[in-house]
Amino acid sequence: MSKEKLTYRDAGVDIDANAVWVNRIRTAMTSTFSPRVWRNHGGFAGLFRLDYAETLFRKEYRSASLVGCADGVGTKVLLAVELNRMEGIGIDLVAMNVNDMITCGAEPLFFLDYLATHKLDPQRLAVVIDSIAAGCREAGCALLGGETAEMPDLYHEGHIDLAGFAVGVVESSRAVTRKLVRPGDCLVALPSSGVHSNGFTLVRRLLKQNRVDLHQRFDEAGRTLGEVLLTPTRIYVRSVLSTLKQYRRKRVITGMAHITGGGLPENVARILPPACNAVIDRKSWTPPPVFAFLQELGVEADEMYRVFNMGIGYVLAVRPAFLGGILRNLRRAGEDPFVIGKIKSGHGLVELR
Amino acid sequence: MSKEKLTYRDAGVDIDANAVWVNRIRTAMTSTFSPRVWRNHGGFAGLFRLDYAETLFRKEYRSASLVGCADGVGTKVLLAVELNRMEGIGIDLVAMNVNDMITCGAEPLFFLDYLATHKLDPQRLAVVIDSIAAGCREAGCALLGGETAEMPDLYHEGHIDLAGFAVGVVESSRAVTRKLVRPGDCLVALPSSGVHSNGFTLVRRLLKQNRVDLHQRFDEAGRTLGEVLLTPTRIYVRSVLSTLKQYRRKRVITGMAHITGGGLPENVARILPPACNAVIDRKSWTPPPVFAFLQELGVEADEMYRVFNMGIGYVLAVRPAFLGGILRNLRRAGEDPFVIGKIKSGHGLVELR
Repeated sequence: MSKEKLTYRDAGVDIDANAVWVNRIRTAMTSTFSPRVWRNHGGFAGLFRLDYAETLFRKEYRSASLVGCADGVGTKVLLAVELNRMEGIGIDLVAMNVNDMITCGAEPLFFLDYLATHKLDPQRLAVVIDSIAAGCREAGCALLGGETAEMPDLYHEGHIDLAGFAVGVVESSRAVTRKLVRPGDCLVALPSSGVHSNGFTLVRRLLKQNRVDLHQRFDEAGRTLGEVLLTPTRIYVRSVLSTLKQYRRKRVITGMAHITGGGLPENVARILPPACNAVIDRKSWTPPPVFAFLQELGVEADEMYRVFNMGIGYVLAVRPAFLGGILRNLRRAGEDPFVIGKIKSGHGLVELR
Repeated sequence: MSKEKLTYRDAGVDIDANAVWVNRIRTAMTSTFSPRVWRNHGGFAGLFRLDYAETLFRKEYRSASLVGCADGVGTKVLLAVELNRMEGIGIDLVAMNVNDMITCGAEPLFFLDYLATHKLDPQRLAVVIDSIAAGCREAGCALLGGETAEMPDLYHEGHIDLAGFAVGVVESSRAVTRKLVRPGDCLVALPSSGVHSNGFTLVRRLLKQNRVDLHQRFDEAGRTLGEVLLTPTRIYVRSVLSTLKQYRRKRVITGMAHITGGGLPENVARILPPACNAVIDRKSWTPPPVFAFLQELGVEADEMYRVFNMGIGYVLAVRPAFLGGILRNLRRAGEDPFVIGKIKSGHGLVELR
């Protein structure tokens, strides 16, 4: 045939760069491995020993349930791309998943990522994988595997998308489900580190519409607006799990919510039984300045609370008699918790006052 | 403030459509549930009982390892979008993951998906979720959860991306790892259903470059070229696991490879110990017509084998003394297996002859 031959590389997919990449991510993955992870690089799947140190595991888990979560970072990744600051986006990715997972009391075991990109540039994307590994170490889970997809026809030049999956384990009899919350329970909030990883389609629209300079100095620590917006999502795993461990017999933490898209109203509603309302007093905390800044760019106050976390990344419902002890335990674990409201009888609604 | 207020919906993200969507996918998910899945809709995470019917589980698994896989469908999704035929793409997604998983002998337990889209159109995307659920039922795993992300700034109008993640379990002492393959082992192939879910960036380039009509009738069954290309990836879970179960004590299936990107050379290489080569005889089978068609559009023969599965979706290395029995077991499970080569001493290479 005289026809010009097309290779996969001609079509925009570089199998060799992929081989370089696979070797590059091995280091990041290994940095997260405990002895429970099988050394199985190059295999088709990642293996994780469930009962390494079997006696210990069986003592902790008499009837274990696995917990699975899937989430992405949304268009925060586009802001990171625009500012060429990818070193926090992997922490966001892990946080979005493991913070969901711990709401039922589960301990994260391992994580897998999906990284889709226009062009596989191992140099540039190494920062992303390193930050995913950093997030995994902070959450105490192994980066067991993942998939990198080079799709020039699906993604614009320079663009990437990021999704992640976390697997954990919880003793079934101690899993925290919505049935435990009841009137009188107190709502304890843990501060967010800023916007976290939700609402960025709106954030970016506001910035563009108002022609905002992302390089302007924003806070007293000398950070730019871009840096403040890209602050990685806080990972609440260690403080929440260490507090849960203080109350093994009594069920005093009755519900937990990770505050993501939908804000406090939608996410706190997810832990309410049908006959309970949550009453949250907005005056009980001051949202960080970044939220007032965004609101000034043109958002109604109610919409702010419906889209953003407003300074609260995680909420625990607790029995009032144990409030003091739980606050102490959270503080000891490095948190700065505060009470934002309580549960009363109602219809499964969140009242923001 | 006189400034026009921007809502999240104005920015292109429709929180209400998302609520409709969440209800819509509940049906699809529930269709995959076994009694081991917690009914926890609306929660932050999916829960899966590890030891439902505990005695049975402990009998099967004395020292269990969890297995995790992550994969996407690549740009096959763009062809499905172009032809507005999404009813197979979810089966592809599940197949890409569970076929990887069973290579180590693991039984799939649950699946989570990531569906990213320009615009959340519940009507249109329901087909995708339904097909993911169909794939999960065929693979015998639960669709435990997932994430749908609406990102108008990251995806072109009409475009979607799909990634998935599967979790399974394997008895550690029976896990199939590369150490078992040795010279003399036979290579048994299971037919693919066509191109499966790899190489579509090249396929689409070839079609475009040659201005090929996707609606032309392609095969004797009256299917169009588009339909042939979109044939869902075969799921090998039931036939492979039922065959493995016939050999619980003896380790007679010594390695398994899912033939994806990189074709036979790269994927069979993944099951070879450093001192073994795989010799594959191309004359032992005839690739389906779709591969000759693609090659004619302008691809070198060697590149074809490096990018496409060439009609073979899954390869098992087996001890020669058990070849007959394994072929019989695979046939009984509905497969049409054939021998394509064998293992000899070497350097971890695949020789395509």
